Amino acid sequence: MTHAAHIAARPSRVVIGRVRPEIDGGRFPIKRTVGEPVTVEAEAFADGHDVLGAALLYRRDEDAAWTALPMAPLGNDRWEGSFVPRALGRYAYTVQAWIDRFGTWTRDLSRRIAAGQDIATDLAIGAGLVETAADRAGPEDAARLRSAAARLRGGGPDAGAAALDADLAAAMARCAERDDLVTYDRELWVLVDRERARFSAWYELFPRSCASEPGRHGTLADCAARLDYVAGMGFDVVYLPPIHPIGRTNRKGRNNAPVAEADAPGSPWAIGAAEGGHDAVHPQLGTLEDFRRLVARARELGLEVALDLAFQCSPDHPYVAAHPEWFRWRPDGRVQYAENPPKRYEDIFPLHFEGDAWQSLWEELRRVVLFWIGQGVRIFRVDNPHTKPFRFWEWLLAQIRAEHPDVLFLSEAFTRPAVMYHLAKLGFAQSYTYFAWRNTKDELERYFTELTRTEVAEFFRPNLWPNTPDILTEYLQTGGRPAFIARLVLAATLGASYGIYGPAFELCEARPREPGSEEYLHSEKYEIRHWELDRPDSLRHLIARLNRIRREHPALQADRSLAFHPVDTEALIAYSKRTEDGANIVLVVVNLDPHHRQAGWVTLPLEGLGLSPHEPYQVHDLLTGTRYLWSGARNYVELDPHGLPAHVFVVRRRIRREQDFEYYL
Amino acid sequence: MTHAAHIAARPSRVVIGRVRPEIDGGRFPIKRTVGEPVTVEAEAFADGHDVLGAALLYRRDEDAAWTALPMAPLGNDRWEGSFVPRALGRYAYTVQAWIDRFGTWTRDLSRRIAAGQDIATDLAIGAGLVETAADRAGPEDAARLRSAAARLRGGGPDAGAAALDADLAAAMARCAERDDLVTYDRELWVLVDRERARFSAWYELFPRSCASEPGRHGTLADCAARLDYVAGMGFDVVYLPPIHPIGRTNRKGRNNAPVAEADAPGSPWAIGAAEGGHDAVHPQLGTLEDFRRLVARARELGLEVALDLAFQCSPDHPYVAAHPEWFRWRPDGRVQYAENPPKRYEDIFPLHFEGDAWQSLWEELRRVVLFWIGQGVRIFRVDNPHTKPFRFWEWLLAQIRAEHPDVLFLSEAFTRPAVMYHLAKLGFAQSYTYFAWRNTKDELERYFTELTRTEVAEFFRPNLWPNTPDILTEYLQTGGRPAFIARLVLAATLGASYGIYGPAFELCEARPREPGSEEYLHSEKYEIRHWELDRPDSLRHLIARLNRIRREHPALQADRSLAFHPVDTEALIAYSKRTEDGANIVLVVVNLDPHHRQAGWVTLPLEGLGLSPHEPYQVHDLLTGTRYLWSGARNYVELDPHGLPAHVFVVRRRIRREQDFEYYL
Repeated sequence: MTHAAHIAARPSRVVIGRVRPEIDGGRFPIKRTVGEPVTVEAEAFADGHDVLGAALLYRRDEDAAWTALPMAPLGNDRWEGSFVPRALGRYAYTVQAWIDRFGTWTRDLSRRIAAGQDIATDLAIGAGLVETAADRAGPEDAARLRSAAARLRGGGPDAGAAALDADLAAAMARCAERDDLVTYDRELWVLVDRERARFSAWYELFPRSCASEPGRHGTLADCAARLDYVAGMGFDVVYLPPIHPIGRTNRKGRNNAPVAEADAPGSPWAIGAAEGGHDAVHPQLGTLEDFRRLVARARELGLEVALDLAFQCSPDHPYVAAHPEWFRWRPDGRVQYAENPPKRYEDIFPLHFEGDAWQSLWEELRRVVLFWIGQGVRIFRVDNPHTKPFRFWEWLLAQIRAEHPDVLFLSEAFTRPAVMYHLAKLGFAQSYTYFAWRNTKDELERYFTELTRTEVAEFFRPNLWPNTPDILTEYLQTGGRPAFIARLVLAATLGASYGIYGPAFELCEARPREPGSEEYLHSEKYEIRHWELDRPDSLRHLIARLNRIRREHPALQADRSLAFHPVDTEALIAYSKRTEDGANIVLVVVNLDPHHRQAGWVTLPLEGLGLSPHEPYQVHDLLTGTRYLWSGARNYVELDPHGLPAHVFVVRRRIRREQDFEYYL
Repeated sequence: MTHAAHIAARPSRVVIGRVRPEIDGGRFPIKRTVGEPVTVEAEAFADGHDVLGAALLYRRDEDAAWTALPMAPLGNDRWEGSFVPRALGRYAYTVQAWIDRFGTWTRDLSRRIAAGQDIATDLAIGAGLVETAADRAGPEDAARLRSAAARLRGGGPDAGAAALDADLAAAMARCAERDDLVTYDRELWVLVDRERARFSAWYELFPRSCASEPGRHGTLADCAARLDYVAGMGFDVVYLPPIHPIGRTNRKGRNNAPVAEADAPGSPWAIGAAEGGHDAVHPQLGTLEDFRRLVARARELGLEVALDLAFQCSPDHPYVAAHPEWFRWRPDGRVQYAENPPKRYEDIFPLHFEGDAWQSLWEELRRVVLFWIGQGVRIFRVDNPHTKPFRFWEWLLAQIRAEHPDVLFLSEAFTRPAVMYHLAKLGFAQSYTYFAWRNTKDELERYFTELTRTEVAEFFRPNLWPNTPDILTEYLQTGGRPAFIARLVLAATLGASYGIYGPAFELCEARPREPGSEEYLHSEKYEIRHWELDRPDSLRHLIARLNRIRREHPALQADRSLAFHPVDTEALIAYSKRTEDGANIVLVVVNLDPHHRQAGWVTLPLEGLGLSPHEPYQVHDLLTGTRYLWSGARNYVELDPHGLPAHVFVVRRRIRREQDFEYYL
């Protein structure tokens, strides 16, 4: 007996496992936006051949009680259920399963009846089950169940039919004890964000380059005036590099020169000067009042202002004198500057997140975020989060989310995949990606399959940038305007969220600082630029069209449906996105070769797209308005980079035929 | 401050994740045999750019202390380490990682030196690290470290070289505190079995059919005499269906007739009669003493006897009267018989594993197993484990393993994959598979890729049976002798463990009870058969050759190296297995079409097999002795099912050339 005592009395026979989605054993949440369904799969089984039942349980964080939804069997012991989070915040979910003794009994009884067997004893067993349930039921069900049990006990020709009655089954599902009920041993959770976390078009610009005339330092007021131009292209988010006072000590000059010219404006990321630090506005840009006006004007235009969170200091930042405990000190009595040996960034002091004063530092940084939230900011782009401790982000993001669940953070971590994914797991709503360096068909297909078709899609929301102030890729440098268009279409359609750094992008600025460099010549990081926005070769109208297409086509507003389709030409890539109900299907074909006309045959999975192999269908190019009649799985495509190197088709199943003619019938 | 207090003081910056192998978050062990390495991969990373260190920790269950082995970086934050369990039982393993501050410092220092930078301050920082380590070190290391620190503080032209000295690095690795040391939050474990768990050839036979003359009920003594024949074919395990007294009530007749003929011997699985139950020997087979002699004779011949554990009772089993509490009772006052509605098995009473008396029942069944262990049995084949509670098996197998870690259990569960895999996770050393029903190339490739190349290989050891007393597949029924040979070669080479039910198999017995049935005509389950073992068309000699090949070629003694290779003919399947060091490579090609000669081109991954694309290599058919000279990746194969429908090649890289001729040099 001593040995058997190791086993808990009457252990359950039911096993629940392989619950999906589940990130790292439940350590991290999955992500959804309000209204976006959470579909949960699980394995649930028992020994033997009994019928099982399974339920998906979910609740909002604040709720005490679970809501239970039945899960449907998918075969091979897999079950599926789905719920839709309707509010911002956190939801929990888990799975229950049990042995459905009455369901087992009715399944067996119907087989016995079909085989013409005597069922007298079986009816007595069933009556016992029903009576036991009646003892647990409310008065109404109890009466119904007792009457059913009496009919089973009575036997006779109708007893079998009575036993299999649907009302009885429903009453038993309500009242019968769930034998061997097991709850999965983990509560999994969902972070629910607003829609912008999933679907957004970003435009990055430097306010100081927004002056209407060359040579003048632009202001936040100039920037506010520029918003019409940005909104006219259909963007949702306008992201500003840091707007704070810029340090003078070791200031970088134009083209990242180690010694600044006298009039060099400095890098906006060298934050802090006598005029203030992370909660101040650079005097040449204006005042906090100007900033609030900018935010208000953006809101009028349907735009949101995103600020940069770059948690580092220039040597002139007020923190350095007031809080030496927030920095690391070298044996030579100086503050440790940023470095990646042998490179030194002596204009930047990192904050010492792990020093003895870590708690007061973390609190201060939280105060900075809350300060800008107080000014109306709801989106932050976080500079190099991978150089600060993971736990800091986990803490900060949870802190902010608890009070402001509508605030979103974009992670700017261009580092190793494990680190990028980990930051996303910690709570960043969106993440920069390797998109800029994925230029061939194979690279794009493999990377975006990983991002959208694996577990990664549950916690990592990609934001695709073909360029940034730091990244002017060789593809853009060498491919000319066709390369910019191809990358624009890819970004805007592969990613439900994408962004460009403008006006460099729409004006196809492609000159590197030096051959082999990805940095811009005359980078706006170190000098003020004046852009000719009205140049006739600007891509602004194409961008506006693409953003309108994105708004009008819900298929492009999420990433999980992305599917690549074979094309027998290496330079052509084809993919589609569709809404869950299949009502909206967008098919994109891009010529990745910016130099040559390319043609080939695209093969579509007709059944997967809900298309008939026997009837033609229409593909309507939303960029040009041209419509093509296609039929069957394989169709011809030809794209000239010097015209438009891409098709963005909406696929229409229904072609007008003779039956649609009003006299046909 | 209140908010920051939610974070533990100085949380570690290091993250460990994605440890593999890890079954269901560590709930279940992986499996190895003694001497078989456990290779562990993990992700370990921190924010920023510091150098990390990682270690694989392992210990035997009984050991108090961990052994730590360094893990090597694989790139992209993945690490790998390996240990070899040398004893039976349980091992635990986990992963540690830390920030290697001295390693980071030396990496950066060497970059600074290469860039010609001033390193005075850096040497002072490094000296501080070394002095701190000296304070923690034993006397010898402390002296070495203090002397090194002094040289760093001294500066001068040699200080840089002294800082990068390998002995200093080794002393620092021993003594320096491991900053931000993190241990993975789960201990994972390994069940270590003896080699037979991984590599075994089984032969099933009915002792009652072992009489030398027709018409007589065979005995255990006859069975002992038959062992020379079994050992002559090179098997390791001889598995006997239940040898216990057989019930008379509702006994089945020949060909599973519902009413038995007067002289029908009954099914050995209808266990229990007046003569005894699960710990008794059927009187017509002999005595317990005869059984011990059989075990001893088997041992002399290098064979192990495996017994059947069929935990069910005939209506005449002594348990029924002595322990009515171990059965489920129907409202009609009878014991619940086995059934799968509408089928009824009225000669079998299942035991009620979940009744109120479950503890005494489980203890009794444990006693039965220990009883047969006491008779010298070390292998059990478990009948239908999926119809008993999972927790019972988990408990029973752990109980037995604790006292007898050399005892192995084979799970005979032909049920849904999730249930088969779950039983394997609970501790069964080997498992029956769907092999019998995987007959086409695509079926075989997909199934055996799942079994050997996914996580399944960590806990599920397949045992491949082309036939059993219950399974005579359509492929064998219709394919004749070529089909038996093809299935034999597949079983013996796809599986490091395989078995046949003989002599039906080697005599190519292929008559079903009725068309469409998988049951044998005149099944030995219900009658005694007399087999003509010396028939000239017997496969016994081919079987002997295959089992010798398996013993001589370690590549065939494990499953994880299995790789399929393309053949441009659907009826030909090709695959290889290799030892970890690549010293032994076996390539198998089988014609799956038992009716027609088939030919095609096999494509081998030369690099993966360590073969040169520029030099020929030899493939030596171990079945026929024929040697072929192949070159390049693609080579021609032709197989006639009416000769031998398979090649079992050993691949030899080295071909004798002119340089090998003694006068060449």
